[in-house]
Amino acid sequence: MAQSYDYIKDGAAIYAQSFATIRAEADLAHLTPEEARVAVRVIHACGMVGVVDDMVFTPGAARAGQAALEAGRPILCDSQMVAHGITRARLPADNAILCTLGDPRVPDLARQMGNTRSAAALDLWGERMDGAVVAIGNAPTALFHLLELIDAGAPRPALVLGMAVGFVGAAESKEALEERPDLESIIVRGRLGGSAMAVAAVNALACERE
Amino acid sequence: MAQSYDYIKDGAAIYAQSFATIRAEADLAHLTPEEARVAVRVIHACGMVGVVDDMVFTPGAARAGQAALEAGRPILCDSQMVAHGITRARLPADNAILCTLGDPRVPDLARQMGNTRSAAALDLWGERMDGAVVAIGNAPTALFHLLELIDAGAPRPALVLGMAVGFVGAAESKEALEERPDLESIIVRGRLGGSAMAVAAVNALACERE
Repeated sequence: MAQSYDYIKDGAAIYAQSFATIRAEADLAHLTPEEARVAVRVIHACGMVGVVDDMVFTPGAARAGQAALEAGRPILCDSQMVAHGITRARLPADNAILCTLGDPRVPDLARQMGNTRSAAALDLWGERMDGAVVAIGNAPTALFHLLELIDAGAPRPALVLGMAVGFVGAAESKEALEERPDLESIIVRGRLGGSAMAVAAVNALACERE
Repeated sequence: MAQSYDYIKDGAAIYAQSFATIRAEADLAHLTPEEARVAVRVIHACGMVGVVDDMVFTPGAARAGQAALEAGRPILCDSQMVAHGITRARLPADNAILCTLGDPRVPDLARQMGNTRSAAALDLWGERMDGAVVAIGNAPTALFHLLELIDAGAPRPALVLGMAVGFVGAAESKEALEERPDLESIIVRGRLGGSAMAVAAVNALACERE
């Protein structure tokens, strides 16, 4: 027999109640208002209030990300899921969103480099890295290779979101990012991370509205 | 001064070591081999071994999902992130992957229904629901509305992946799915879930190769 389901159907009310629950449960007292907005959205994306304890912000990171987006800088993503999760309507300057993983040159490039396709894809970013927001939500190899590219003289991004996920290299790649005083970064430490968290951070930086 | 980074750069080796770590750490003894493959990939997607404790499979779910994909049935997704995360090369029958959230009819439909766009988008699935794999990795309202559609006579999917995430309705929508003996389902209980987990489950069912 058919049941009837009683649930909240208003999108704005769902967002409001979600963010109110997160702000009631999460310990955000150590964060600036800008950082707290990022943390709230990252928590919202994964359903875990405790993830805030694994988040690290360099002091200028949140403002640098906001300023880069307001200035129309691109968002460079390591995976299609990140690129397709960003809410375009929130972006302040119709910013370009770029993921080069599907470029037909990437498989050959990866073989030549002896690295993953996720890492090789970054070699196609070129000058677009200059002042960009880089969102790494998947591949530790992409994050390691980003640091290598910058060391080799590639243009410097305004902000790196270090949210690679998983069991091999994720924690290590984010430790390597955290040890770089030359880069603004927002990091989710350890094995945790993922495309939804990286998307949430971009969406938070893009627009102050919750 | 530039550092050099020492990390594993071979994609196949990274996968192998990741899955070996997960199988060493995770308690999979209560699962069938098919279920364990799904659990391993879901763990891989979120970086949390413990998520297996929140996973529930109906007895026929994993095999029903495999069979549906082998029979060429479509994969119906509640979000673009889910649709764009599925690895097409793993699909056994070049299966269609459908997300109707961006359809221009959806905003009006949502207003008429008094529900979210995520829920309204399901009204455009129509006959494609018949025997399909439905992957809900984001919106609780989509999962509730799926159950409503089936109660109203919509074609029955072969498998429902109930992995809605968040603080409002996520746990409740998945409880509602779990209480349906008429549907095969794989569920991540509670607030946890997300597009990466739903993608991981599809990718596991699509191909036995880890």
